[in-house]
Amino acid sequence: MTSLDDLPIRDDLRGKSPYGAPQQAVPVALNVNENTHPIPEAVAHDIVARVAAAILGLNRYPDREFTELRTALAGYLGHGLAPEQIWAANGSNEVLQHVLQAFGGPGRAALGFAPTYSMYSLLASGTGTAWIGAPRDADYELSPETAVSAVREHDPDVVLLCAPNNPTGTPLSLETIEAVADAANGIVVVDEAYHEFADEGTVSALSLLPGRPRLLVSRTMSKAFAFAGARVGYLAGDPAAIDALRLVRLPYHLSALTQAAALGALAHSGQMLAMVDEIRAQRERITTELARMGFRPYRSGSNFVLFGGVDDPHAVFAALLERGILIREIGLPGSLRVTAGTEAETTAFLEAIAVFAPVHAG
Amino acid sequence: MTSLDDLPIRDDLRGKSPYGAPQQAVPVALNVNENTHPIPEAVAHDIVARVAAAILGLNRYPDREFTELRTALAGYLGHGLAPEQIWAANGSNEVLQHVLQAFGGPGRAALGFAPTYSMYSLLASGTGTAWIGAPRDADYELSPETAVSAVREHDPDVVLLCAPNNPTGTPLSLETIEAVADAANGIVVVDEAYHEFADEGTVSALSLLPGRPRLLVSRTMSKAFAFAGARVGYLAGDPAAIDALRLVRLPYHLSALTQAAALGALAHSGQMLAMVDEIRAQRERITTELARMGFRPYRSGSNFVLFGGVDDPHAVFAALLERGILIREIGLPGSLRVTAGTEAETTAFLEAIAVFAPVHAG
Repeated sequence: MTSLDDLPIRDDLRGKSPYGAPQQAVPVALNVNENTHPIPEAVAHDIVARVAAAILGLNRYPDREFTELRTALAGYLGHGLAPEQIWAANGSNEVLQHVLQAFGGPGRAALGFAPTYSMYSLLASGTGTAWIGAPRDADYELSPETAVSAVREHDPDVVLLCAPNNPTGTPLSLETIEAVADAANGIVVVDEAYHEFADEGTVSALSLLPGRPRLLVSRTMSKAFAFAGARVGYLAGDPAAIDALRLVRLPYHLSALTQAAALGALAHSGQMLAMVDEIRAQRERITTELARMGFRPYRSGSNFVLFGGVDDPHAVFAALLERGILIREIGLPGSLRVTAGTEAETTAFLEAIAVFAPVHAG
Repeated sequence: MTSLDDLPIRDDLRGKSPYGAPQQAVPVALNVNENTHPIPEAVAHDIVARVAAAILGLNRYPDREFTELRTALAGYLGHGLAPEQIWAANGSNEVLQHVLQAFGGPGRAALGFAPTYSMYSLLASGTGTAWIGAPRDADYELSPETAVSAVREHDPDVVLLCAPNNPTGTPLSLETIEAVADAANGIVVVDEAYHEFADEGTVSALSLLPGRPRLLVSRTMSKAFAFAGARVGYLAGDPAAIDALRLVRLPYHLSALTQAAALGALAHSGQMLAMVDEIRAQRERITTELARMGFRPYRSGSNFVLFGGVDDPHAVFAALLERGILIREIGLPGSLRVTAGTEAETTAFLEAIAVFAPVHAG
């Protein structure tokens, strides 16, 4: 039998394993920060109707410039954005890949603040871009001074700021983003995949776009929109930067089904986002309860919570999995990550983990 | 206003324009080799039902390994293929991009026989792979001797064989494919995007897979399956080669909608492919009629015809467009390309081009 090593794959791929959290069917899946609430039924019906219409014309290539979708995304984001400032692709991973293909590549470097979203370094590697993981402050926070100092030291071609940060949940202040955008000579991407879960009053980096043509803000419909299965990521920036992404995307990269489904969801964004408040409430409940048990939850502006103070993370992970509850081992010492699910899922998680609480209520 | 040149894009992208045939709404669009027959209504209904079911679970990530789709594609292809020998992505462009990411890249080279599918060189450039356009024989044919001689001379890491060739339509003999597969030290991809339109009795390169772990055969659902809008390309090869592609694909690259729609189409492949015979008949009609008019149609095993003998291709293109008929200027001197459409569309094309016939029937 032929093995991977017998084939002439690129040297930098030898011995590597594919990315991916295990996909297991369990009653309570809180491991990949999905929105555990299904799409509201009335919205689902409209999406089906739009997709059905698209299926009738599926023999033709889709609109390569996804003009209607861009217009809808611009409308959703607000901030006076025009359709020509919008980009979209099959998940925000592909959006970021386009950015690295256009502005990174061999001989260039991308910088992020570790620990951060693990796909950044993989996307860098896949596009031949060098990856620099600069350090954070205590408790995974990132001050303007720490961030700017790394940007000045390394002068990267692309900076990737995850706001809030995954896998730590840490919110990122607008001051830090603004300071990085003004200090960097290259492209600065603010990845706001979880922005909709931020505390009320949190201002998006979209507000910093005017006058900054090298600043890009990416989002996803996977989380707040409960649309992970549809694979829709998007980005806002200067029209010139969008033109650059058009040079590297594959033609017709967004299917007619994807465009129709996303338009359906965006037409009902109010209903689609109604569950966000409930998820945020469960996140706060997790944080409060874990702290009460003696764990050390980190500050979160997302739909998940990273918590320390776990003696044996793998043992706790395995014990919960045995009870049908799947959470995530992140590889950070003494820590685990859990997604905020429905009220019932959160209850199941909190009851299961209470057994391992450092502080036992008497 | 910021222009593309003001931004720090990669040097090799400076001054480039995005790929793409113009997308114009015209009554008779015969420019991008689409299947101009819509999906049969009964099949469309089943696809809608499957997609509707997928929409209910859209809040979860899709099956990253698209196991059910692989099984269905293996079943469709036959030749004793197993699901672990199948890969798929958003269009065969993305499939080929995965191949070049895994087996090409900086310091490596891919070879094709020009003129050939224009995306090959763009995909090579996008993955940092050098591109070698080796020559063909007269009338765009490719003999085993010519092909093997180029492979021996350049010793490329990846060979891309387009069978039948786009944009010329030229069938490629199994002898040439076998000779290249046996002469090459690198990966050999046979792009069979238009295979279903080949003359009866044409044997697929799938028959050459056993014992050749570096041979890959790619297909698409865009053409014969009338599924261009759904973006589904796929590939068959050794399980080890498929493992290599898994290292470079973005996680969850195939949406739940794409997987559901493709499964629906494959469940009715007989009905979906019923229009192939009719399209092949129109292709033969185009070839016969153009030859009768004094044009020089090339041999075609696809759903389109390239023809020479056109004095002023741009003038003919523009005159047809004025009559609502869109065909394709390929950039080959004295030549134009037309897709075989429905009988009515073919009639419209033949009537319109008769005015420009080198030979006027008396």
